[in-house]
Amino acid sequence: MPDQPAPRPPDPQRRNQKSRRAILDTALDLCAEHGYGPVTVEAIAARAGVSKKTIYRWWPSKGAVVLEALDDAATPAADFPDTGDIRADLVTQMEGLLRGLFADPRVGRALTGLIADTQHAPDLARDLDQMLIQPRAEQARTRLAKARTDGGIRADADLDLSLELLYGPVYYRLLLHQGDLHSSAEIRELVDHVLRALAPHAPE
Amino acid sequence: MPDQPAPRPPDPQRRNQKSRRAILDTALDLCAEHGYGPVTVEAIAARAGVSKKTIYRWWPSKGAVVLEALDDAATPAADFPDTGDIRADLVTQMEGLLRGLFADPRVGRALTGLIADTQHAPDLARDLDQMLIQPRAEQARTRLAKARTDGGIRADADLDLSLELLYGPVYYRLLLHQGDLHSSAEIRELVDHVLRALAPHAPE
Repeated sequence: MPDQPAPRPPDPQRRNQKSRRAILDTALDLCAEHGYGPVTVEAIAARAGVSKKTIYRWWPSKGAVVLEALDDAATPAADFPDTGDIRADLVTQMEGLLRGLFADPRVGRALTGLIADTQHAPDLARDLDQMLIQPRAEQARTRLAKARTDGGIRADADLDLSLELLYGPVYYRLLLHQGDLHSSAEIRELVDHVLRALAPHAPE
Repeated sequence: MPDQPAPRPPDPQRRNQKSRRAILDTALDLCAEHGYGPVTVEAIAARAGVSKKTIYRWWPSKGAVVLEALDDAATPAADFPDTGDIRADLVTQMEGLLRGLFADPRVGRALTGLIADTQHAPDLARDLDQMLIQPRAEQARTRLAKARTDGGIRADADLDLSLELLYGPVYYRLLLHQGDLHSSAEIRELVDHVLRALAPHAPE
């Protein structure tokens, strides 16, 4: 008769993952309920059922928690497809970004609050850029670079300017309170304009 | 022999103008020195040589003081010329906006701090839009509408989208920490791209 299996020791990795998930989810929930400003590490800890010490062991600040929660939420919502059709792929990605991500009140209020916070906190500004923005910008640059070689956009297109033309309008509306997020029709119009600006030179 | 003129009574309007100027200048000075966040109405009052009560008689908050100071600073720096050449006028205006205004540390830090503040303060967000943004956007729309009729841009160009394409990239860099303000060469490249996106339809 085989031995009963010994009871498994607690799995610290699994427990950490569960706490991590609860902390990140709670941070976005609280931002949706109160806005980013009034949320505290204490309130996140209390509702997530962990100690403040646990949060501070993993993150230096509320902003860092919210940043990681947004990074989690942004994948795969803001991922870049590659169907070979640059227009369709840009529209799909921007739909995912706006409809799937920014329009979610858990994300929208956390994002605008976090960006506000970065105006006074250089470390958080650097982390916002390195953790959240650059990985997505790199995906976009890769997709646009492919479009440069396959003739979807001009061979000498400036990729960083292209990103600013595509995403600048989105953040302009969001952060300067210029109305609702772009509708699907407005996203298509925006993409069409940017692709016209980047169109291959007419043959001589 | 003529009478000596009677001593003039104190001119409350003039005194108010002098205090107003001192308060607005001091608000921007303090933002340049400390960033917007730590500046208080108390500190503005102390350095401007007025009472807190005087400031609160005219403005509801620190944000409102900074907003009016920025509005003052933006004229004429961000005014829109009309030489008849839409490309030249857009470049001139964006040069004035970036080089004459945003690059000034008294303005830059006040502006990013104020925009951050508006993410948590709906009244201030409304005032930012109505007092600072819409009057300049209206100037830009008027100039672009003229370009629509004289053939500089397509007759059915979407003016609001045009504004987002021109100014979105500026705020994208500024608020998402994407490097220095656009150089003069980058401004010209940006304007060229936007005008290509808005170019009149090729004749059939």
